[in-house]
Amino acid sequence: MIIIGEKINGSIPLVGKAIAEKNADIIRDLAKRETDTGATFIDVCASVPEAHEVETLKWLVDLVQSVTDTPIALDSPSVKTLAAAIPFCNKPGLINSVSGEGGKMEVIFPIIAETGWQCVALLCDDSGLPKTAEKRLEVFGNIMTRAKTFGIAPARLHIDPLVEMLCTSEDGIGMVTGVMKEIKGQYPDIHITGGASNISFNLPARKFVNRAFIILSMAAGMDSAIIDPTNPDMIGLIYATEALLGYDEMCIEFITAFRAGLFEKK
Amino acid sequence: MIIIGEKINGSIPLVGKAIAEKNADIIRDLAKRETDTGATFIDVCASVPEAHEVETLKWLVDLVQSVTDTPIALDSPSVKTLAAAIPFCNKPGLINSVSGEGGKMEVIFPIIAETGWQCVALLCDDSGLPKTAEKRLEVFGNIMTRAKTFGIAPARLHIDPLVEMLCTSEDGIGMVTGVMKEIKGQYPDIHITGGASNISFNLPARKFVNRAFIILSMAAGMDSAIIDPTNPDMIGLIYATEALLGYDEMCIEFITAFRAGLFEKK
Repeated sequence: MIIIGEKINGSIPLVGKAIAEKNADIIRDLAKRETDTGATFIDVCASVPEAHEVETLKWLVDLVQSVTDTPIALDSPSVKTLAAAIPFCNKPGLINSVSGEGGKMEVIFPIIAETGWQCVALLCDDSGLPKTAEKRLEVFGNIMTRAKTFGIAPARLHIDPLVEMLCTSEDGIGMVTGVMKEIKGQYPDIHITGGASNISFNLPARKFVNRAFIILSMAAGMDSAIIDPTNPDMIGLIYATEALLGYDEMCIEFITAFRAGLFEKK
Repeated sequence: MIIIGEKINGSIPLVGKAIAEKNADIIRDLAKRETDTGATFIDVCASVPEAHEVETLKWLVDLVQSVTDTPIALDSPSVKTLAAAIPFCNKPGLINSVSGEGGKMEVIFPIIAETGWQCVALLCDDSGLPKTAEKRLEVFGNIMTRAKTFGIAPARLHIDPLVEMLCTSEDGIGMVTGVMKEIKGQYPDIHITGGASNISFNLPARKFVNRAFIILSMAAGMDSAIIDPTNPDMIGLIYATEALLGYDEMCIEFITAFRAGLFEKK
């Protein structure tokens, strides 16, 4: 499982305050903790007005890179910001994100074409978030066509099928898991990703919904997730699910992660 | 989800001691707690030598029935014991269990044929636990043939496909979830059940494996489980999974269970 550590995000009050107060210790500490708990990428999202976003990202990326070699996931709604921030990174990481909207791919794909950068692609476009599986797969098809044009292999893409909140759903996540299975069937090397928390918006006891969502999505092909790697309950369930799905022969990775203390609060 | 409360089992040290010391308070308290946390059936397993099993079951069943109307799941490896204990119950419950082995169905099915009793049936027979999906489905077919002979409808059967421990598995639970899907496809009204703890035998941090197993099994059609209903983490995940799988429109049941305090330790 590819774990995109979500903790360095200005929309989280602690981090927003650290950014406002230029408190470097908090950012460095979060980067270290995410590294220690096994993050594959460290997501860095400024969540500040666009005029200050690039400089804030530079400050955050520099701090993260001062304490860890874990690659960065550059996270912004603006592809201009993302393009400007790529040179701050010491090594290729993950762009979070493009979609079928507003020429985003046309900005990012040429820049990362000949590099090792990976990229999250959301299954929405200028008409919004498609309601049906067919329409989402159509957006997916368009993304793959553009990726191919720039020579970006499926293994460098993390497709986020975009789950909507469960509280207003009439039939659960069946449509989205169906889309995941179809995509993974078409491109076995592609990554399927998603956040763990949109699904539980407006519900109580959100942790249960988030955790069960990740497990059910893994069964449908999800192999990448934007989560909090320092949460031992989520990590324990992810390792257990990998073993149950047959990706961890004799549970070697599960037992190793347990021994490394990843399933217990420190 | 049909929840078969597993706490009154003589193999659990606290309960074994209560049975040995005839401590009625402990048994009554467990029965009340399982009722309060939403058990559909209260499993009662003596785990004593067969010579004392029937009298022990009578003592346990009487105690449970003195504090709750929740139906009993009579649990014994001996079908003779189960047959002898049926008259102790005030109302039809669940027989746990028969299988394809040693004429077990021939003892139990005629007794429960014209009643409201339900029955757990394990997918093993005299040749043991079949290694392949095909063989398990063959055992299943034999069970359904016998059930039909006695007029026992699929909706009264809880099929336990019997998962083996994950620590020695090379490919996870794919075979067993495949069997679940096939059975539920053949008989949409049948119940699929299982215990939550065999799977994690010999592993550390067993709770993660048990919980992820139940969630993945629910996605494959499991709608009945032998678990501890007083465990708020397991119950929270089960309600969340039902909503995610589309069985709980607008999350009404999830929210109701949350408000009833089922997801928080009391």
